[in-house]
Amino acid sequence: MSECETGLELRSLIKKSGELEISLADVAVPEPAADQVLVRVEASPINPSDLGLLVGAADMTTAKASGTKDHPVVTAQVPEAAMRAMAGRLDESMPVGNEGAGVVIKTGSSEAAKALMGKTVAMIGGAMYAQYRLMKASDCLPLPAGTTAAEGASCFVNPLTSLGMTETMRREGHKALVHTAAASNLGQMLNKICIKDGIGLVNIVRSKEQADILHKIGAKHVVDSTAPTFMDDLTQALVETGATIAFDAIGGGKLAGQILTCMEIAANKTAKAYSRYGSTTYKQVYIYGGLDTGPTILNRAFGMTWGIGGWLLFPFLQKIGPADGMKLRQRVVAELKTTFASHYTQVVSLQEALQLSNIAVYNKRATGEKFLINPSKA
Amino acid sequence: MSECETGLELRSLIKKSGELEISLADVAVPEPAADQVLVRVEASPINPSDLGLLVGAADMTTAKASGTKDHPVVTAQVPEAAMRAMAGRLDESMPVGNEGAGVVIKTGSSEAAKALMGKTVAMIGGAMYAQYRLMKASDCLPLPAGTTAAEGASCFVNPLTSLGMTETMRREGHKALVHTAAASNLGQMLNKICIKDGIGLVNIVRSKEQADILHKIGAKHVVDSTAPTFMDDLTQALVETGATIAFDAIGGGKLAGQILTCMEIAANKTAKAYSRYGSTTYKQVYIYGGLDTGPTILNRAFGMTWGIGGWLLFPFLQKIGPADGMKLRQRVVAELKTTFASHYTQVVSLQEALQLSNIAVYNKRATGEKFLINPSKA
Repeated sequence: MSECETGLELRSLIKKSGELEISLADVAVPEPAADQVLVRVEASPINPSDLGLLVGAADMTTAKASGTKDHPVVTAQVPEAAMRAMAGRLDESMPVGNEGAGVVIKTGSSEAAKALMGKTVAMIGGAMYAQYRLMKASDCLPLPAGTTAAEGASCFVNPLTSLGMTETMRREGHKALVHTAAASNLGQMLNKICIKDGIGLVNIVRSKEQADILHKIGAKHVVDSTAPTFMDDLTQALVETGATIAFDAIGGGKLAGQILTCMEIAANKTAKAYSRYGSTTYKQVYIYGGLDTGPTILNRAFGMTWGIGGWLLFPFLQKIGPADGMKLRQRVVAELKTTFASHYTQVVSLQEALQLSNIAVYNKRATGEKFLINPSKA
Repeated sequence: MSECETGLELRSLIKKSGELEISLADVAVPEPAADQVLVRVEASPINPSDLGLLVGAADMTTAKASGTKDHPVVTAQVPEAAMRAMAGRLDESMPVGNEGAGVVIKTGSSEAAKALMGKTVAMIGGAMYAQYRLMKASDCLPLPAGTTAAEGASCFVNPLTSLGMTETMRREGHKALVHTAAASNLGQMLNKICIKDGIGLVNIVRSKEQADILHKIGAKHVVDSTAPTFMDDLTQALVETGATIAFDAIGGGKLAGQILTCMEIAANKTAKAYSRYGSTTYKQVYIYGGLDTGPTILNRAFGMTWGIGGWLLFPFLQKIGPADGMKLRQRVVAELKTTFASHYTQVVSLQEALQLSNIAVYNKRATGEKFLINPSKA
């Protein structure tokens, strides 16, 4: 590699004019400092959390393709009402891709860096939709021999998020949990963890097909929020599991409040005395996604002992600290081909990731559809 | 006092038929055990928190008076839709009155009990709308000489709630706070605490008259939620104070979410880098009342670092423990005639408390209207 060599890096730009532009930039391949390594990225998933940065608030039904075969460009309009939420990123060309995996092809002079030469490593930290990624050696997660980059591409976001949920449950004194949009890749992973660890999990889905997916992998409690008996079904599952904490990917509408209401009904089934402030059982819903971007509506029919809040992986990892975070990562690596295996429906190059026909599929965020980008694919 | 002597005790009963009945029961005056004292109750306030138990969900426009002059009875209908929330108390005749003060007229044999003989004491624990109240000696708060029962009647609910707010603010790492329905008796007390302790307080009111009340007692930040410039005014006050925690007495509607939105805008004024998950500043709203019983509507335009929850005095006191709780009580007693002075617009007997004309006034929960019951008043 000569000093003037460049690699492709995917960029997302929202202009003050209200236009989204997704393109591939030629960026200089950087030279590792002493404690750094250069990784040739070979696999990086398109997670829902990546789409937020990739397409932002743009209306992708207005998307147009231009540019060349090697350097395709996609443009689309951001509705004016949504521009306020984009204020913080206007006219900044932003790299994308939270996590990925690849092979270390060049290292700095430190022992830790040199030890990684030729190894396949998993990475997190953004800018993974790129052919090359500079990393601190200590931030790389070396994968066991026999593990491909594709197998290690999703070591962080979904595995640590699902482990973060059961960890949060334990640390905040709950004994079982509720999960919504539960047939997602993440939801299936959470089921595998809970089955393995013997944790009660109430899965809330929005169709019979999604319920079937979960039953097939051994889920015990699956309730369908579109069923007329939803509130009773949910209450019954809460009584059986004792779940008093929920992780909600939907965010909008009445669901978060319905979960708290059913938790309160479940708690009052064992209450000894009347209190007009409701049960003394603490009930928590964490909203970690926004599949429904409409307002959250709480009827507050659940007493006074409750909380709702936002939940994100990175603040959670900061809270538990690096030592406990490392334990979670070690578990992910140990169970990468079982509990934490991800399945992709398509593997695409950077150029293919910018094809309108592909964007139309992965931007639906449909359960069961998951794309993997291989930036080193020709 | 002979063993068959009785005293009056106010009772609230909601029947399965959907009828509320408020009456005065003749109950036997109890004999104190060794560690107990008998208090002749002389003052007990009607707080919003008492009205919830006293009238429950009844529609007081349907109220009817019956009974005798000494034993008046009030009945009213509970709307069928509200009966579900009353399920826990049906057909139970419930005593009312969270707090009060009176004179110890009989004691048990323990030294602690005997030491209280003749003293004026403040009490909390329910059943204070009664002529006599049996208390454990250790649960009585003796008032300094020269303090009347009327002056000591409101030692707990409002003083400890307002102190609980500034305590919660400190313990959860915030440096200033927001309060809604801020011109209330409680809100005025909170202003006095914050002025004395040098704590930034943003008062949210719903009229110019309420703003005037607060300005007169020295409040610095008062914003009117009915003003067209409300969101900007609130944001400006949040920037000036750095408030990131709010205590909301309203509960329903958009206010709690608007507070979080303005906190997020204030936090982002100093943000260094774009994050589509919003600022990393933790923002909290505690709902401690329900002046608006409608649904809480959150537009979630405030990133992912936020929480909303219920807040109540008693769980707070349990959380901080008896030693720290005692420090708060000692401060209340020391500042009973200044910071924690309560003002009453009327003093009524138990019988007068059941007059429909009086109920119509105190059940409005209007700012500036506050009743004190003197059960020993003839």
